[in-house]
Formats: sequence, structure tokens, C-alpha cells
Amino acid sequence: MTHPRDEIVRTLKSAKNVLVATHIHPDGDALGSQIALGNVLRSLGKNVFLYGEDQVSHLYKFLPGSSQIESLLPALNGFDCAVALDCGDSHRLGEAMDSLLTVHPFVVIDHHSGHQEFGDLRWLAPDRASTGEIVYDLAEALGAELSYESAYCLYAAIVSDTGSFKYSSTSADTFRIASELLRKGVKPAEVSGKLFDNFTVKRLNLMRLVLDSLQLYADDRLAIIAAPREVFVKTGTTQADAETFINYPRSLDTVKIAVFLKETEKDLISVSLRSKGTDYDVAQVAAAFGGGGHRNAAGFKLHDTNIGEVQEKLLAKLLPMVAS
Amino acid sequence: MTHPRDEIVRTLKSAKNVLVATHIHPDGDALGSQIALGNVLRSLGKNVFLYGEDQVSHLYKFLPGSSQIESLLPALNGFDCAVALDCGDSHRLGEAMDSLLTVHPFVVIDHHSGHQEFGDLRWLAPDRASTGEIVYDLAEALGAELSYESAYCLYAAIVSDTGSFKYSSTSADTFRIASELLRKGVKPAEVSGKLFDNFTVKRLNLMRLVLDSLQLYADDRLAIIAAPREVFVKTGTTQADAETFINYPRSLDTVKIAVFLKETEKDLISVSLRSKGTDYDVAQVAAAFGGGGHRNAAGFKLHDTNIGEVQEKLLAKLLPMVAS
Repeated sequence: MTHPRDEIVRTLKSAKNVLVATHIHPDGDALGSQIALGNVLRSLGKNVFLYGEDQVSHLYKFLPGSSQIESLLPALNGFDCAVALDCGDSHRLGEAMDSLLTVHPFVVIDHHSGHQEFGDLRWLAPDRASTGEIVYDLAEALGAELSYESAYCLYAAIVSDTGSFKYSSTSADTFRIASELLRKGVKPAEVSGKLFDNFTVKRLNLMRLVLDSLQLYADDRLAIIAAPREVFVKTGTTQADAETFINYPRSLDTVKIAVFLKETEKDLISVSLRSKGTDYDVAQVAAAFGGGGHRNAAGFKLHDTNIGEVQEKLLAKLLPMVAS
Repeated sequence: MTHPRDEIVRTLKSAKNVLVATHIHPDGDALGSQIALGNVLRSLGKNVFLYGEDQVSHLYKFLPGSSQIESLLPALNGFDCAVALDCGDSHRLGEAMDSLLTVHPFVVIDHHSGHQEFGDLRWLAPDRASTGEIVYDLAEALGAELSYESAYCLYAAIVSDTGSFKYSSTSADTFRIASELLRKGVKPAEVSGKLFDNFTVKRLNLMRLVLDSLQLYADDRLAIIAAPREVFVKTGTTQADAETFINYPRSLDTVKIAVFLKETEKDLISVSLRSKGTDYDVAQVAAAFGGGGHRNAAGFKLHDTNIGEVQEKLLAKLLPMVAS
């Protein structure tokens, strides 16, 4: 059996004008993978357009090449190939999904377990810790030499999606690739400093308010934090500023499952779930609410509701799981 | 030129009874390296004694084999070799230093820059991020097969001493070895969980109260947080729980100088100062109050006073400094 990589390599090699897209609310893995793949394809003589519905958050502007990403959809008839990176399903592409999917061949590269298939050619690797790792392998398969900037972006992608090599998805392959990226000149402390020491005063104020919301259940095995709309308004922040806060309840020694409820828009609740070890599969919980993700990190969104309602529904699912 | 490794390998191969020691207040790198080297030598048929002056802290009891470490000095005439691991100078061996150094050959394996030489044979590698990495290479040079337990201990050593691969010491070699250790079955999330997810709820509550005290001056270039006596009492914590909190004001993007005022006992104020870059020397500020430290990290203590008084005196010094 041939690896899906092989046909994707042939497709990209023969393409001239490639659109590379990633998901809404792009994180370090999405953006790092997107910029690096753009550089790789350009080094092979392709015309590349990097598209993302949302502007790059200030947290990721440090990624070299982040200013290349356009949030205005271009005319799509000029592209003979499109790539979607790090999208667990087609809706992650945002409002332009239907238009984007008119480009063929449409290549999908993703590492989410519970991926909902879309597009024409798919490299799905749920065993990989990040899409950045797959892009690394793809660059190698394409015979492209990674630039320092691309190595930097892929390293940031990997560090972002593994919580600096702490998550269970981290594999021997993850470390092998990190090692190779350092050989390209990437400085781990520099990238980690940008990813982790980037607090604005507004963001610290948001963190204080969010941590004040901490609630513990089931002998402190379940922790819930919440960010209603007003805390973003009050502190002048956006949901991107809250990205890593789930790590605080998660890092409590007694906690098995951590939940972060964010009112990202009026009446739209976005939920992040984290669990520790192999006993608690939060991807299943997320799936029950129409979401997805991994065993230890998953999420979902619910419309026309509020934090209290979602919390109640979640408690009904989670309390029996953590009881015992 | 021969590598010091070669003679150390010969020495260890011909030894029968080996004492393996590490430093006082042992951390993850010290203990992980010590246990792993003990296992390696035992697998080669040696009798091994693991010695450390201090008991293993509860934070590191999770290391498989940690109970083998003895804090009672054995009769030393039975040993035909001793190894000191992760000791930047001989005094780090503790009170038994002089006795330990009567064992010959005395092998020293360390990665600290500014190492003060001692012992008979030395493998000093200041370019390595951890002693654990050197022990990994030594095991390979000895032709020993690493057990899962040894791989676990060496992985913990590396993660401890690199802050989970964030510090600038992290190298391509660090990642290469981490990758190999994972191939032995080590689960990164398990080890990281033991090392980092040990926040207690009490400590998180303390953090919330301390962060609520944040005050900013001079266009957010100076940040002050404070922990009066009552926040420790209220949360049932001690000042050890507040150890790393200065990193929060320090991590603010605008901040040049961060201050943490702790009322560690009634009317005793302990002050931590941090600065960024080369423009602000907080050691000088600390010295003016009878304290000391380095340019970017210093501190002092004042008796018979309170947080408000100390803050006022500090502001008089610091505001002219940060007013650009």
C-alpha cells in the first residue's frame, strides 16, 4: 500500500499556484505549519498564498513570516491546488469553507484524532503530536531544504502543541524532529521565551479574573474555570489571550480533568477539556457535544447557551467519570 | 587526544565495588543520574552503593529506585572506585566530602560551567544541559543496555535541568537522547506530570491573592506584587509556596523591574527584585538595603517594618531608575 504522502508529494510537485489554509483562531501549530509549508513550496518554485480567516494574534506575530498570512480570501480560480493544515474538520476553515473546497486537488494534512474526512487527498496522522511534524516529514519527502525561518516555525509549532514536550502525544519522533530543527540553528530558549513569556498587563488581569472563577468538584479531581464575555470586555482582551489558562487548573496535583468555559461571543460557549493519564478520555466527552480532539485535550462549542447551562450539562457527564 | 570518557570506562569496568554520590539538596538531575548510573553499573555485575547526604525530597520519591539512596555514610575502605555526579565543586558532596575523597580512583562527572576541579578522573561537559545526558553517553560507552527504569530516571534528569526543554542549554543532543529514552518506553506526560503538575490548590489560591496585589508604575515598566502575612495564613501556605511568583510580573512584556514584597514573619519583610536586560542593576538596589545578588536577580530583608513602608522606600529608589 502506498503512503498518502506519495500522492500528495506528486500533487504538490506538479502544482503551480498553491493556496495554504489553516483553521480559525489559529494556534502556534496551525501558523507555524502554514508559514513553513509556504516557505517550502516557494523554495520549490511555487506561487503560494497563505490564507486564514482570522488575523494572526499578537501572541504569534513573532513567527518569522507571519505577516504573509492574508485574511482576505483571494480569487480562487487561479489556484491548481489547496492545502488545509491542522483542521480536524472542514468547518475549521471558517466561513470560506465552501469556496475553498472548490479548489482541486484539495489536500488535507492533520493530526487530530476523530478527524472528519474532507478534501481530495488526506495525510491524517493522529499518532503525531503536531501538524508541524507532518509538515517536517512532507518537506523531506519533497526534497526541500528547510530554511532557518521554516525550522523556527516548525519548532514553535511542535512546542505549542506539546506544551513544551509535556503532553502524552510527545513521541520519539517529536524529539527526533526537534533535534534536527535545532541543527538548523533554532534556539529553544528564544522560541520558548516568545511563546511563554509574553504576558501583557491586560492578559495578566484576564488571568486573575479567570483564576478567581476556579471551582473544584469530586474531591478536587475536577476543576472548572470560566471566562464570561464581560471579563474580556473589562480587560480589553480577546479569547486568544486566554489560550493557555487551562494549564493552571490542569497543573493542580489532585486534578484529573480540567475544564475551561469561554464565552467567546454572545451566547456562544467554547469549551476546552484536559485530562491526565489514560483513564479519562475527554475526546469522547467533546464528541458527545459535537466537538473533537485528543484523549487528553479536546474541545467543543455550543451556540445559544450560557456558561451556567453548559457547566451543568458537563458536570452531568464528568462527575460520574471522575467519581471513584 | 583521548576523551576522558575512555579512561573512566576502563576504570569502571575494572572496579568491583563502586560508591556513587551526588550533591546536597539533590534535584532531579542529580537523583535521576545517580539512580540510572547505579542500575547501569549493577547490570555490569558491580556492587553499587548510592550515597547522598540529604534524604530524597518528596518531590522526587516518584523516581523508580529512589529508595536505594542512602544518607548514612558506609565504611569507605570497601570501595575500589567512587563517582561524584552533578557536583560543581567538592563541597557540594556535603559534610562527608573529605572522607569520600579518600576513595580512589575518584571519578567526577559534571556539566556545570565554572566547575571547580576535584577527584582523579573528570568528565566535565559544560555544553551539556544535564548530567543525565553524560550518564546516557557513559552507559553507551560502557556497552550497557539501559533498563526502562534507568531511561525513566535519565529522562526526568534531563527534563528537570532544562525546564522541560525551555532553557538555553537545551541542545540537539538533548533532544537526540530524549528521543532514544522514549524508545525505551518512557512516557513524557507521565514524567512531566510528576515533575510539574504538583501545584496544590492552596498554592493556586495563594497565587490568586498575590496576583491581585499587582501594582504598576512608570508606564508599566515597574511591577510590584506583595504577600502580607495574612495571605499565607488564609491559604494555609508558607513562603516556599510563593517561590516562583516573581516570574509573573517579570514575564509582563512592558516590565523592566519586578518586585515581590513578602511578609515572611511578623514585621519581617523579604524583598525579591528582578530586572531584564543590562540597563537595570537590581543588585545595587538590594545592596543599598543591605542585601545582595546579581544584576538581574537580587534581594534583601528588613526587620521591624511593614510592606507599605518598604514599598515607599523602594519606589524612591526605583522610580528614578525606570523613568526613561
